[in-house]
Amino acid sequence: MSSFFSQKYAALVPYTPGEQPQDMQYIKLNTNESPFPPSPGVASAVAAEVRKLQLYPDPEATRLREKLAQVCGVDREQVIVTNGSDDVLNFAFMAFADQEHPLAFPDESYGFYPVFAALNQLPYLEIPLRDDFRIEVEDYLGLGRTIVLANPNAPTGLALGREEIRRIVAANPDNVVIVDEAYVDFGGESAVPLVKEYQNLLVTGTFSKSHSMAGARIGFGIGDVALIRDLNTIKYSTNPYNVNRMSAAAALAALEEEAYYKDNCRRIMENREYTTQALRQLGFTVLDSRANFLFARHPSLSGEEVYRDLKRRGVLVRHFNKARIRDFVRITVGTREQMERLLEELTQILEGKT
Amino acid sequence: MSSFFSQKYAALVPYTPGEQPQDMQYIKLNTNESPFPPSPGVASAVAAEVRKLQLYPDPEATRLREKLAQVCGVDREQVIVTNGSDDVLNFAFMAFADQEHPLAFPDESYGFYPVFAALNQLPYLEIPLRDDFRIEVEDYLGLGRTIVLANPNAPTGLALGREEIRRIVAANPDNVVIVDEAYVDFGGESAVPLVKEYQNLLVTGTFSKSHSMAGARIGFGIGDVALIRDLNTIKYSTNPYNVNRMSAAAALAALEEEAYYKDNCRRIMENREYTTQALRQLGFTVLDSRANFLFARHPSLSGEEVYRDLKRRGVLVRHFNKARIRDFVRITVGTREQMERLLEELTQILEGKT
Repeated sequence: MSSFFSQKYAALVPYTPGEQPQDMQYIKLNTNESPFPPSPGVASAVAAEVRKLQLYPDPEATRLREKLAQVCGVDREQVIVTNGSDDVLNFAFMAFADQEHPLAFPDESYGFYPVFAALNQLPYLEIPLRDDFRIEVEDYLGLGRTIVLANPNAPTGLALGREEIRRIVAANPDNVVIVDEAYVDFGGESAVPLVKEYQNLLVTGTFSKSHSMAGARIGFGIGDVALIRDLNTIKYSTNPYNVNRMSAAAALAALEEEAYYKDNCRRIMENREYTTQALRQLGFTVLDSRANFLFARHPSLSGEEVYRDLKRRGVLVRHFNKARIRDFVRITVGTREQMERLLEELTQILEGKT
Repeated sequence: MSSFFSQKYAALVPYTPGEQPQDMQYIKLNTNESPFPPSPGVASAVAAEVRKLQLYPDPEATRLREKLAQVCGVDREQVIVTNGSDDVLNFAFMAFADQEHPLAFPDESYGFYPVFAALNQLPYLEIPLRDDFRIEVEDYLGLGRTIVLANPNAPTGLALGREEIRRIVAANPDNVVIVDEAYVDFGGESAVPLVKEYQNLLVTGTFSKSHSMAGARIGFGIGDVALIRDLNTIKYSTNPYNVNRMSAAAALAALEEEAYYKDNCRRIMENREYTTQALRQLGFTVLDSRANFLFARHPSLSGEEVYRDLKRRGVLVRHFNKARIRDFVRITVGTREQMERLLEELTQILEGKT
């Protein structure tokens, strides 16, 4: 820390992203990327933008927002697009939480929530997941707090149904409920249809997972027109051109080729079920994931050991050194070949133990 | 504003970006873009990234930072890259200003500075430019404030020399001086060589102007290692993957083809001198610009009239409806053909007046 750094950030502990080795020699199952490249139309859409890269992007991202609105069955004015969904989440924390609207989110969820809260000096309450790692709807009724839920949740992969989300939204009419649907396309149930009924619901999403574009940084928020207007007030006071030309065009092209991504999601879900069964046969406890990752622990290996032994063997998974989830690893679901390799390595690691 | 919007932002007035008509039928001289496309190597660098777009970018942008460090003659750890230079400016306002370190910047400068200050609830002092629109060094000595200077300044185009910047930096050792060099490549003198001598100097730059990449959103900051570490604390608490793969690759490719951009800057400076003389012959007062734009007023036309009449004729320039600069328009310097067209239209507008 320099002597010039503002004291208000002196205690800030930044988020630690998963390892991103740049040499690409690992089987990378640690940051929930898609194993599939973007659809064919993306390359030509991007190439067309490179030729006009000297011009600023449309700050309103009009065409992308129109298409997203159409896909989601909402109006364009109910959509904001951002530089990854971290961007819209940060805006939402800024806009909809303060001393009078303190935050609440599960104790085990996306690790960025407490960081956004600390960055913006917002009070927050972490509500423990139940012993089986479920979010219990009852715990979120009539809270009087701005609520943030990842659904499906990370790193557990467990999901609430739309009617459960509805109960939480309806029971907190004076506060915004932010539902982070980064992983919804792998078998979750989106809350987007509820935004027409509830003015206090903001749903966020991303092209990073199901749409094979973690490298492009495209996130979005969908909610009541007034909520989106508030988020735009923050955006236009921060970085009006937050989405670059190439990424906006890539996302738009992807939405024109939805069948490709739906098929990829189907394959990932098949691989998830296959891997879940195989891991259980190896003695792992595996939570019932609705996401593109599995959260698993083994009675005779610590999470740290699984992570370390797999890394040594060329397979990267994610381990969180936090009390409640220290025994687990989070494993991204990749191709069938990648899953076979993972299972092979785990089999050998377990054999080495006996 | 929704009923959920935090009161702390209730009075926030966002920045208004210049018009970005998406139909491209105007001669666009309103947002200081380059009239030239990016260099040839950019397209293939971007295409290579599209094929791995499913993977997150390197959050440290290592290769781009290394190359930038080499070009600037500093260490990699003295460089941060961001989603446009608005991103690094916002981080710097957050990191280096607070109640104990209030801000100071000129009353006429980049219009985003007071917005960043308001967003982060930072006290600020606007120091009037002198009557000839110059920044007077004496006004900034021993201020006891975090100082922000655009150099060359916008919208005036006037520039301070490196030794003038040095005097300001040296005379404020307990505060950070942020020098925003968005326009430095058009004849300004960069303060980057001073970062080795002064721990309180942060220089910011962008690929949006001289490097024909406004559409890619690449900005950067260069300063003492400790300052950059502070900015990274903010970045990793906001959006660790703030720079997407394609833009990082585009910027890196551009730095490998510097001759192309230097030649473009030379042409723009030639067109600037040509246009300055021609505007003066038409009766305009034109400030001595070191940037890729001209700031000009005419005794018989209001700034609003020039803007409006030119727009009607298919030429977009920028007008700021602010007391001190209301009589002026800011005109981006484009190609010789664009400048000829501008001058033709202005001649006709003036003839219509007589």
